[in-house]
Amino acid sequence: MKLRRLAVIGVGLIGGSLAKALRAAGAVEEVVGCGRSKANLDLAVSQGIIDRYSHDVGEAVTDADMVFVAVPLGAMRETFAAMRGRLAADAIVTDGGSAKASVVADARAVFGELPARFVPGHPIAGTERNGAAAAFAELYQDRRVILTPLAETDPDATAQVRAMWEACGAEVSEMSVAHHDEVLAATSHLPHMLAFGLVDALARMKENDKIFRYAAGGFRDFTRIASSNPVMWRDICLANKQALSAMLATFADEMNDLSQTIAKGDGEHLLAIFSRAKAARDRFVDGDNNDAGGSAE
Amino acid sequence: MKLRRLAVIGVGLIGGSLAKALRAAGAVEEVVGCGRSKANLDLAVSQGIIDRYSHDVGEAVTDADMVFVAVPLGAMRETFAAMRGRLAADAIVTDGGSAKASVVADARAVFGELPARFVPGHPIAGTERNGAAAAFAELYQDRRVILTPLAETDPDATAQVRAMWEACGAEVSEMSVAHHDEVLAATSHLPHMLAFGLVDALARMKENDKIFRYAAGGFRDFTRIASSNPVMWRDICLANKQALSAMLATFADEMNDLSQTIAKGDGEHLLAIFSRAKAARDRFVDGDNNDAGGSAE
Repeated sequence: MKLRRLAVIGVGLIGGSLAKALRAAGAVEEVVGCGRSKANLDLAVSQGIIDRYSHDVGEAVTDADMVFVAVPLGAMRETFAAMRGRLAADAIVTDGGSAKASVVADARAVFGELPARFVPGHPIAGTERNGAAAAFAELYQDRRVILTPLAETDPDATAQVRAMWEACGAEVSEMSVAHHDEVLAATSHLPHMLAFGLVDALARMKENDKIFRYAAGGFRDFTRIASSNPVMWRDICLANKQALSAMLATFADEMNDLSQTIAKGDGEHLLAIFSRAKAARDRFVDGDNNDAGGSAE
Repeated sequence: MKLRRLAVIGVGLIGGSLAKALRAAGAVEEVVGCGRSKANLDLAVSQGIIDRYSHDVGEAVTDADMVFVAVPLGAMRETFAAMRGRLAADAIVTDGGSAKASVVADARAVFGELPARFVPGHPIAGTERNGAAAAFAELYQDRRVILTPLAETDPDATAQVRAMWEACGAEVSEMSVAHHDEVLAATSHLPHMLAFGLVDALARMKENDKIFRYAAGGFRDFTRIASSNPVMWRDICLANKQALSAMLATFADEMNDLSQTIAKGDGEHLLAIFSRAKAARDRFVDGDNNDAGGSAE
């Protein structure tokens, strides 16, 4: 796999790390960046992440054989619109959005139909940092990338996007758009809602400064994701509103049931839930099994 | 502050670390341990955590001037019963339970009234490890300890328990039993319910092995506390069922509201919630401000 010209629209952690990883793998000849911040793009050039840049999407994608769209979900549609009519005939387009149905809808709305060489994708990776300065070549090493090709998608385009991510060390899976959005609603979007919701609920309590003072390590870990970017998460909620609102409502019902189980003092039922959860986490989440075994705080 | 004889009932992380910290501070002459596991107690002796031990609570507390009860909440009542009639006249008793109303009720049930020299307490500290082997002298350094003395409590006993914890480097606060249980329900018990509930919900989904496979770092942090000891957490739920069930029900209602806000696509409202939560966490939780700023995973 060797790309001749990669266009990265949005040279932040996600887009910049793809460019760095492909360069490190010798899998790309030229990288053209695109974004709004001159300072960020100049930095990306000086660090060798991109060779050159344009603030204009249409110009940036000109003659690229691969285009990676790493902009917030709320900016997908305008980004697609800006590249319409400017892509090379055989150019492949893929993206890094955290919800896929909305990106597919945006592409359909802009192009009239889903372009055969557009492969919706989502690298499940990230750190707490932002911008080209945060990019690093190893971000995708051993991380999952989900591709959600549709019936209209050219299998060759999917294969090339897969090869690109594999060159970065990622493990690539394919699933349907709907399944992706459900899986991510469960493993990422719902937890973020709970963390935001919990911190907000505590912040609205009387004497909330005192309450936070007594929060221990478990609370810090649990709520870390509540420090995430509010605008990005608004966009994710709006983009995945069907799967997420359904899952959140189901979860709320389950928490109501749990509340009643506690009120009734049904210790046997509580023990069953907690034991199942501990077993599942210890089994499925690698690397830190049993790591809170005795902490009551 | 110097204790002549400290009895530690339950020589695990919490009890063992208190003994180690007091020894390191030169604040105790003799430590007598009590527990069921001979291996654990022998280890505690060999590591100098305790000087000697008994498997019998009544024997262990004999002639102690301070008794620290560090047993699970479900074992408090039987432990109090075992020390009835065996305590020295001026002995002070305190505990480390994560819920306080139930411990006070247990003490009242056993002693007929709340003993004047019993000071309910809760050190907000813990690690993922268990047993005397996990104990270390610095566990309480700069950590919070909450004492919940009642009207019947002898102020001198409270002052001595405070001095004991301060000798370990802890910051001691006093609050009412009810307020303690509400604060802990919010900052510790509710988050644990959400983490247990989320992991259990995912584990019950179809193809749950695939779902966990796509969980990223944020999910790992968020659900770490779901690996906690199920028996201990059953006990905490039963001990704090009133405050916790009420808080969980309120939270479930709020998550239902959030679900509808998402379903309606009310981005402005979502942004307000997320921004408030991020601001609160960045302001109140020390040490890792803004640490998930850009992670969408």
